[in-house]
Amino acid sequence: MNEEISASDGTITESVERALAEKDLPGLSTVVNRLSPPQVIDMVERMGVKDRAVVFRLLSKGKALEVFEGLDATLQGELVQGLKDEEVALLFADLDPDDRVGLLDELPATVARRLLQGLPPQERDLTAAVLGYPHGSIGRRMSPEYAVTYPDLTAAQTMERVRERLDDAETIYTLPVLDSGRRVVGVVSLRDLMRAEPQSPVSDFMHAPEVVQATMTAESAARRCADLKILALPIVDNETRLVGILTVDDALWILEDAESEDAARISGSEPLRRPYLATPVRSIVRSRVVWLLVLAVGATLTVQVLAVFEATLEQMVVLTLFIPLLIGTGGNTGNQAATTVTRALALGDVRPRDIVKVLAREIRVGSSLGLLLGTVGFAAASLLYDVQIGMVIGLTLFSICTMAATVGGSMPLIGKAIRADPAVFSNPFITTFVDATGLIVYFLIAKAILNI
Amino acid sequence: MNEEISASDGTITESVERALAEKDLPGLSTVVNRLSPPQVIDMVERMGVKDRAVVFRLLSKGKALEVFEGLDATLQGELVQGLKDEEVALLFADLDPDDRVGLLDELPATVARRLLQGLPPQERDLTAAVLGYPHGSIGRRMSPEYAVTYPDLTAAQTMERVRERLDDAETIYTLPVLDSGRRVVGVVSLRDLMRAEPQSPVSDFMHAPEVVQATMTAESAARRCADLKILALPIVDNETRLVGILTVDDALWILEDAESEDAARISGSEPLRRPYLATPVRSIVRSRVVWLLVLAVGATLTVQVLAVFEATLEQMVVLTLFIPLLIGTGGNTGNQAATTVTRALALGDVRPRDIVKVLAREIRVGSSLGLLLGTVGFAAASLLYDVQIGMVIGLTLFSICTMAATVGGSMPLIGKAIRADPAVFSNPFITTFVDATGLIVYFLIAKAILNI
Repeated sequence: MNEEISASDGTITESVERALAEKDLPGLSTVVNRLSPPQVIDMVERMGVKDRAVVFRLLSKGKALEVFEGLDATLQGELVQGLKDEEVALLFADLDPDDRVGLLDELPATVARRLLQGLPPQERDLTAAVLGYPHGSIGRRMSPEYAVTYPDLTAAQTMERVRERLDDAETIYTLPVLDSGRRVVGVVSLRDLMRAEPQSPVSDFMHAPEVVQATMTAESAARRCADLKILALPIVDNETRLVGILTVDDALWILEDAESEDAARISGSEPLRRPYLATPVRSIVRSRVVWLLVLAVGATLTVQVLAVFEATLEQMVVLTLFIPLLIGTGGNTGNQAATTVTRALALGDVRPRDIVKVLAREIRVGSSLGLLLGTVGFAAASLLYDVQIGMVIGLTLFSICTMAATVGGSMPLIGKAIRADPAVFSNPFITTFVDATGLIVYFLIAKAILNI
Repeated sequence: MNEEISASDGTITESVERALAEKDLPGLSTVVNRLSPPQVIDMVERMGVKDRAVVFRLLSKGKALEVFEGLDATLQGELVQGLKDEEVALLFADLDPDDRVGLLDELPATVARRLLQGLPPQERDLTAAVLGYPHGSIGRRMSPEYAVTYPDLTAAQTMERVRERLDDAETIYTLPVLDSGRRVVGVVSLRDLMRAEPQSPVSDFMHAPEVVQATMTAESAARRCADLKILALPIVDNETRLVGILTVDDALWILEDAESEDAARISGSEPLRRPYLATPVRSIVRSRVVWLLVLAVGATLTVQVLAVFEATLEQMVVLTLFIPLLIGTGGNTGNQAATTVTRALALGDVRPRDIVKVLAREIRVGSSLGLLLGTVGFAAASLLYDVQIGMVIGLTLFSICTMAATVGGSMPLIGKAIRADPAVFSNPFITTFVDATGLIVYFLIAKAILNI
């Protein structure tokens, strides 16, 4: 299925490219309006800025809106700057308040202010409510357009309210239940509502609500929505008064961005702010060079360690041969442990206060791995070189594996405990640390066993 | 908010542990039945096998079912083996067909067969339908209990059908529209239905359907559902006849598992099949040791390369000092590129046929990074040692960065093109390859410049 879609995409891309090259706008219009919004999004994400504006202008109004909503905020910002003021104002008025806020963040302040002022008063208020929360908080990403009910309304009365909000509520499938102080005291699903006796009050069939505060980070809130596997999560202020709603589709958008950021950080680079092929080479270089330099400076530790043991190396050049193997194995062991624990943290399987349990496990895991690898290393090096070298390699592998697993497993927990992003205590740093300490251990063991 | 929950969890865990130790079953029952199902799940995932069965038995029937559904299949399997036959049969009959299939896969074949035969005939048929698809396919994970409508039914008639399926359909918010051959010709949301005139036919307001085939891998199907940000995805056979439905909450379960697997594979270990703290140490060791050994064997390549250049090293021991720094930088550069491209592949931003574009970009990115790092390395090494060493280090950094970015960026695409999991062409392999070739480049440059 997937393959069929990509195959037909190929032909579509070609005919679009041909129409663009030949400036055949009517032909282009026919082609792009036959595509589904996800197909158009896919295509324009891979185009240059100018072509993107051309294609976008040719879309029918409804499709243009859907495509626009599906683009990254950075691409939205670029696109808007290529459109005429009236076109932007119309598009902007049609967006949902949460999408509007994302776009406003991408635009120059003057443009943003002008757009906001062009909105009808009610829409402006809704947008301003979302704009009031700090950057990165779920308050910025929630929708202020929700449908609600009250404990003493009947199922039939609630159904009536739902019908009135059919067109503008972000979701009608999950309804927060509010008390007289607008505090969330329950939640009912549309299915509950349809199942209930028409005259029974909401309080009879509402569930205990799961809510999050608007100041929580967008990523944590989205993760919570996904973890609970619910369709929508009410967002509240610090007195549990309802201020917005996060639907699972918006949560998925947020998580998609967050996962790209995490993946980038774990490999030691800054996240790209737009699709790979639409990112200029110099931006990609910029996203990677700082961490590479930082890590390279960190790696000069290993140069210093080796310089300390230069005399030992001169006496026994054979020790050099094993350096990449030993530090590589240490790095791999550390990364395995760090990745397992980072993932367990993300899933809520472990928490920072489990650090003693995790340390105890990783010491046992690391020493078992070290025993296995050390034995293999001892046997191989003894056969190829001599038993003394074999002992050095075997003992070093044992020590490095134990240390690397312990350090790798505890780093994410320490990161989380001091409220740093666990991904910042990332794998390359563990590698650098394990490299340097591993070399020290190696030469100390070598000096002891070989008497140099 | 999150912090408050964990704090109260701490006290709960303590009181549960105390009650378990004192065998105070009535007290324990009160405590655990006051918790929400997600809290109970969190708690039992961190318990030993026996305590888990004790706690589970004390839950009220509805809560027990919800908790059971929230557990990993492996833990479900263990739990079932600790319960009495009648208890298992009752629980099993209450599960949804897709959950039942997941559990059956975890149980010994005889137990599985007995459980299946104990089901009412209709439930057995539904379960068998799901069991007919291959392991790992979405057919195994979909729900066969869907609500559907037809193009010539009216909105009011469809609403009537929905009311009849309120209790047993997996979702009522997304309804596939079928033609007389059960082929999916459209989809309507419950919101569309409520918005439509009661007498208008479904064909007037249905949308074009997004569907996937039941033989597609569960991960691809779940990813598609999440990418489309839709609440449910109809699953069809190869003639687009409806066979099941995948809801976004089930898609999220599938993706959670898939992400854990990918994270594990990228770091070179096998995924754990249950929560970290519930996994025995020997299973963790087993999940890591094979890859560590494979990677260590791969790393013996570096030993061989260094052995070839042993004479050069004896003449210039100073060259040894930079080995970890150079191969570390190469590894980091390769990992950055591989991670960026793997992520872009997962998001559909690049496809295997973009390999030329990707190669062209990564050569430019890598050489720019190499130019920057090489200049810094040249300056630093010239100051600390001499200009000749500076030139060797600078040129080597330039070559290694260019090569590593190119290899790292193309590996995931090659992996995808030959239909291997891109995560199998994982970062540690790139590192091993870049280590060995980087060392060769280093010594060739050193020999040329230093005339040794």
